[in-house]
Order: sequence, then C-alpha cells, then structure tokens
Amino acid sequence: MSNFIEQLNDEQVKEVKRQMAIYSQGVQEIIPFEDLENKVAKSILTNTPLKIKLGLDPSAPDVHLGHTVVLNKMRQFQENGHVIQLIIGDFTGKIGDPTGKSVARQQLTDEEVKHNAKTYFEQFAKVIDMDQVELHYNSQWLSKLNFEDVIQLAGKITVARLLERDDFEERIVMGKPISLHEFFYPLMQGFDSVMLECDLELGGTDQHFNILMGRHYQEKFGKEKQVALLMPLLEGLDGVEKMSKSKKNYIGIDESPQEMYGKSMSIPDQLMSKYFELITDFTPEQIQDIKARLTSGDLHPRDAKMLLGKTIVRMYHGEVEAEKAEQNFIAVFQQGSMPDEIPVVEWKGEADISIVDLIVQLKLLSSKSEVRRMIDNRGVQLNGVKVEDTQLQVTITDNLIVQVGKRKFVQLKF
Amino acid sequence: MSNFIEQLNDEQVKEVKRQMAIYSQGVQEIIPFEDLENKVAKSILTNTPLKIKLGLDPSAPDVHLGHTVVLNKMRQFQENGHVIQLIIGDFTGKIGDPTGKSVARQQLTDEEVKHNAKTYFEQFAKVIDMDQVELHYNSQWLSKLNFEDVIQLAGKITVARLLERDDFEERIVMGKPISLHEFFYPLMQGFDSVMLECDLELGGTDQHFNILMGRHYQEKFGKEKQVALLMPLLEGLDGVEKMSKSKKNYIGIDESPQEMYGKSMSIPDQLMSKYFELITDFTPEQIQDIKARLTSGDLHPRDAKMLLGKTIVRMYHGEVEAEKAEQNFIAVFQQGSMPDEIPVVEWKGEADISIVDLIVQLKLLSSKSEVRRMIDNRGVQLNGVKVEDTQLQVTITDNLIVQVGKRKFVQLKF
Repeated sequence: MSNFIEQLNDEQVKEVKRQMAIYSQGVQEIIPFEDLENKVAKSILTNTPLKIKLGLDPSAPDVHLGHTVVLNKMRQFQENGHVIQLIIGDFTGKIGDPTGKSVARQQLTDEEVKHNAKTYFEQFAKVIDMDQVELHYNSQWLSKLNFEDVIQLAGKITVARLLERDDFEERIVMGKPISLHEFFYPLMQGFDSVMLECDLELGGTDQHFNILMGRHYQEKFGKEKQVALLMPLLEGLDGVEKMSKSKKNYIGIDESPQEMYGKSMSIPDQLMSKYFELITDFTPEQIQDIKARLTSGDLHPRDAKMLLGKTIVRMYHGEVEAEKAEQNFIAVFQQGSMPDEIPVVEWKGEADISIVDLIVQLKLLSSKSEVRRMIDNRGVQLNGVKVEDTQLQVTITDNLIVQVGKRKFVQLKF
Repeated sequence: MSNFIEQLNDEQVKEVKRQMAIYSQGVQEIIPFEDLENKVAKSILTNTPLKIKLGLDPSAPDVHLGHTVVLNKMRQFQENGHVIQLIIGDFTGKIGDPTGKSVARQQLTDEEVKHNAKTYFEQFAKVIDMDQVELHYNSQWLSKLNFEDVIQLAGKITVARLLERDDFEERIVMGKPISLHEFFYPLMQGFDSVMLECDLELGGTDQHFNILMGRHYQEKFGKEKQVALLMPLLEGLDGVEKMSKSKKNYIGIDESPQEMYGKSMSIPDQLMSKYFELITDFTPEQIQDIKARLTSGDLHPRDAKMLLGKTIVRMYHGEVEAEKAEQNFIAVFQQGSMPDEIPVVEWKGEADISIVDLIVQLKLLSSKSEVRRMIDNRGVQLNGVKVEDTQLQVTITDNLIVQVGKRKFVQLKF
C-alpha cells in the first residue's frame, strides 16, 4: 500500500488525526497503527469507506456490557462513515466439536443459528445502526470449500506458527491434547477476511492471534492486509474476572433500567474510568475531563458512579428511563441514608447464597419466615431493585447494597 | 475381533503357521503379530481372502529392486489367495505442494497420473499377477470430501500424535517449518484404509507412522483395524544408502539382463543374505540353506553372488536370459581371469567421474584419446557390460570391475 498521508492536504490530515484520536480511545493495541492511519487517509482521499469486521460466535447470543466494548468501537467507525461487516460464524457453529469433548461447542441447527443471530441483531441495534451493516454468514463460502481447497489453505501456514497461540502453547506444555480440527478455527477466521477484503478486524485482546491470521491470509492471497484493533477485556462487577454470563458478574443490555442502574452502583471504584472509556458514548475529551476531576477530587466517586449508571441506562433505554432510574435510586436513600453513609459489612460468607439466608446472616431480620414475608411485601431490595422471588439465589458482588424495609441498609465488601 | 485361532482344527492351525512363516520372512515388523495370525485364521475359517493394501505415489514410476521388497511380499500374500489392493495416490499427486517449496511434490496432471500409473502396472506385472489386483484411485473418495468432512477427520486426531512422526519431530527440534497441509498426508493414507476396509497395509519402515494412521482411523470409524507389515529398507549397490534412483545405486527392473547381472556383481558381500531374503522368490527354507552354507564356507561368496544375479535376471527376463547373462559373465573372464583373481585397487578418487578419466587414472591406458578409441572399438566394460558412450559418467560402487581390452581387469574397493 502506498503512502496516502503524504497525498493529503492540511485539512485532510487534520481529519485523519481527529478520527485516529477517536479510534485509539481505550484500545489495547492497533496493529500496526501506521496502517490504520494510512487506510483512513486512503478512505478520505478516495472517498471510500473502510470495511470494519466483527466476527460473531452464534452459540452465545446474550449481549452484556462486556460485548459493548467492541460494539461501541464499531459505532465510532460507523459514525465516521465506515462500513461494518458482521460475520456470523454459522459454519463453525454448525460443525460443532468433532471430538465431542467440548461442552461449549455444541452443534447448532440452522434454526438455532438463525434464532441466535436475530437475538444478536436486536440487541446490537441498541448500539449500532443495523440498517447500515453488511451482514454475512461464513458458511456462504466455507461450506463450498472442498478437500483440495482446504489443503491449499493449510499449505499457507506452518504448524509452528499455530502453536504460538497462547492457549495451544500452554496445552502443549501441560500435555493436554489439541485436536487437529482446532487449528482450523483461526484459519477460517483468517479466510473470512480474505473473502470480505476487510480493512480492519475488531476484537478483544484474546482475539490477538486469530485476528492476525486475517493479515496473514490476506497477504498470502495477495490482498491488502487488515489492521487488528484489539480492545481490552472488561472486568465484571467483581472487579477481577472478565465480564461473562457464566461468572454472573455482568450487566446485560436487555436488563431493566432499575437492574442496570442498581448493578452499575456496584461497579468497583477503581474500574470507573475504564467503564467510562469502554462502554459509554462519551467523547475522548469528556472522558478526559471526568478522569481529571476524579483525580483532583472535584468529582465524588459516588457522583461519578451515578453518572455512569445514568449513562448506561440512557444508552439502552433512553433519557426518560435514565432519569427515572436515577430518581428511584435517590428515593431509596431519601431518608438521608445515601450510599456513602450506609454501614459497610465485610462479607465472609459464601459467594452464592439464597436471599433468605443472606438477610438472616446479615442479621437484618431474625428468621427465615420473616424474610419471606418481607419479600412478599416487596420490602427487600438489592442495589435498589426490589426482590420478588423468595427463592432468589444471590451472587455476592463488592459494594452490593442490601435493603430491608425503609431504613435498614448494609453495603457488602467482598 | 474374536479369537479365530481357537476355532480352528489342527490342520487349519498348521496352515496358519505355514502362511505366517512366509509372511514373516525378512520383515522388519508386524504390528501386531497376533492380529495378523488371527486375521489369517479368520480368512481360513470363513474362506474369505484378506485385503492387502499398498499405496503408491504416482510421481515416481521407475521401479527398481528396492521397490520389489514390498512387491515380493505382496506376491506371497497373492500366492496364498489373498487380494491385493493397489491404491494410486492420485489425489495427493494432483494437489502438489501448496507451499511451492518442495521439488519432489510437483503438481501432476490427470494425464501424467494416468501415464505413471500405467508404467507402474507394466513393471509390477513382473512380480505380481496384475489381473488379480483390485485397483483404486484415492481421488474417488478424497475429492468428494468437503470442509466439514475434513474438520470431522481432523477432529479424530491430536496435534501431539502427529508431531510424534520422526521427521516432524526432527523438524520441530531443528526449527524447520512444517506446513500444516503436510499433516494431511498421513490422514489421507489412514482414511484410504477406512474406505477400503484393508486388513493389512504393507510398506517400508519409513511408512511406520503413516500405516499406523490406518489402524487409528479404522478404529475411529468403527472398522476392524488393519495390521502394519513393515519391510526393511534395501541398501543400494553402495552398501550404505537406501536404494534409490537419485543415488544411482539401484538396479531397475526394466534394465537389460546384462546390466542387471553386471550390477548384481557389485552388490557388497555383506548384503547378499539380505538381498536373497528380500528380493528373490526363494522360500524361507532355501534362503536358510544359502545363509547356512555361506556361513560354513560351503558356498563361495562369488558363487552366491552369481546365483543371486542369475535369479534376479530370471525373475525379470526368464530362464533363458538368465542363463545367457551368466554365460556372458563367465565368458568375459574365460581367459582365467575370474573375478576373485582380479587385482583389487582401492579407489580414492571422486565418486562421480567420466569413463575416460577413470581409465586414465587407473593407468589401464595412458591417454584420453586411447580410451576413446578403445570405447569406440567396444573394448571397455564395466561389470561385464560394454560401454558404448565415450561421454559416460560413472558412479563408482564397491567391487566395480573395470575391463579394458581382453586382459586388463581391475576391481575397485570403494
């Protein structure tokens, strides 16, 4: 690729810098940075949008804020006129795991793939403009490959290169088996980029290896190489593990305004800046401002968290609901018991516990039957959300606020 | 597989033992021996021939005695009523090497594959009864596999298992690249055995890994597992390297009786028993007898070698030509200069040398022009074969007999 930046006028160079500042916001790595800059320059010069790829595994369609880290980045590209290519990995999903060992890779039917894709789209529509998205199913080209094609594909990569992938390397070292078919998942992902001539592929840092496969294969097939844009992984509400459904430390983007706002209140203080950076629609300047004010003490962490919670609700439910959620939260503490004045209790019990046992162990009420009655009377709240199920199983998170009746509050340290 | 030997009567057990003695003759390894014994028993009990597989690479159709090591073993199975399955690896041949690196794996056209296969068959017909052979081209089934089938196939083997193959392991250790498609050659070979339900696959010891792939895949596909029968590699006329065309240390089965006989005379003494065992049609008893007589001194090595030469010529050109070749050899030395009385010269010159330089350096003639004249007058012989080309490039082998005119002989030690 020739150097397009050199061919730009000052105004255009400024536009490249402006876009790059947005795209760089919060990213872990852009590989290579210069290539993206040059591609943006080319796009301006030729008035052609860049093709921004995101591959989706159709097996897990529940979208939470962890996923929106890349979705927000996609939105930024979309807002600047570039084209999003969503690729549903239906071919992979339909194959399943030939060894039959992996629970994660169950074979999906056509129906399931279609259903899951639809669920994705509905949720994605809350972040990106789905009408402007190019949609692809990779079975379109992968299912047409025959053995000879596969051999040709395999001939363009070495075993040593594949073994460099962290998890493969680790399993070799640990003596854990790698089934040969697993080598094909990165190959397929790379070949998808060849077929769609992607300019950039987005993913979490755990996609580092797979996304670079795209560059590798595009080069082998004589195409312009894509840029890898890697976003950091977002820790969940526990502040430690990657946000995921199985860890129960997530905020789903389909959750109610109350739940969203309430859960937001339990985001650990030290992660607040990261959340602002990765999952809100704030500009680089706004985020810089919040960070600076948090550091200087101008902005109280509680107020920042309320702003974050309100922002999250606004993004997925609109202004009105956001306002309501905030008012509701304030109302809960209107008796003067604002969050920062709530007694804090270090939780040393189990991480998973029934709501009844939790309240009894916290000595907020003295018997299980009392708790059940209180729940039936809608007098128990977690992070400001009313508990309606006496059987509820609670996953303890740091900063969880348990409220019983109008006046009993406890905030858990965990 | 149940135990069929237990179900045999004494006569049948004797027959199993008889066949096993023949099949075991000269082999390097039978994996596992018991399985072959049991398969032979089953074959006798059910009156069903065993299916004996030999895979052929269609890229190198020149057959020499090195190849006949397995062909002779096939013949023994055929003579006992079993069926030979010849598989032309045309699918592999047509793919070539996608990396474009290997000179050996040029992509072959359909025409070339067909032509090469025909050349094989004409030559094989000298050892086995081609009318009784089952013929297969593996493109018949391999070309029909799609990506999904390939993934399923790959899902049934681990990377660690493939890396156990000696040459792969060595390359990993040496940091030499292994292209991923190379992993598929053993897989294809294994899948061929699944498709043809082979009972036994024959090959040289260098096929150890690939042939065991057949067992692996047959088991994965719920088939009865084949036996691996591995033959030793035959050293060529230099006594060191595996016989091969590129090393010029071979006797081709299409060569003239004179050439065959002459080259046989330069087989190193210490390899004679091995040649009798691996490339003649002698019975185990006959070979045992020759070995014993060579050890006791009853049989002179020269006479054994003449018997070997005559046998080889008989196998590929018939009795009459064998007799003629022997008589011709004796005639060359009829002036009383029998081989064992020829002066022996230690050759310290180059291994590849022109015939003219060779004779001058041996001081059999004093000038290059004299040598050329002598060749034109058909007065120069190598191992009893007249040299007709003054440009001939000679590859020195141990025991090579150079004759100039009627009386000048020299035997080289190399």
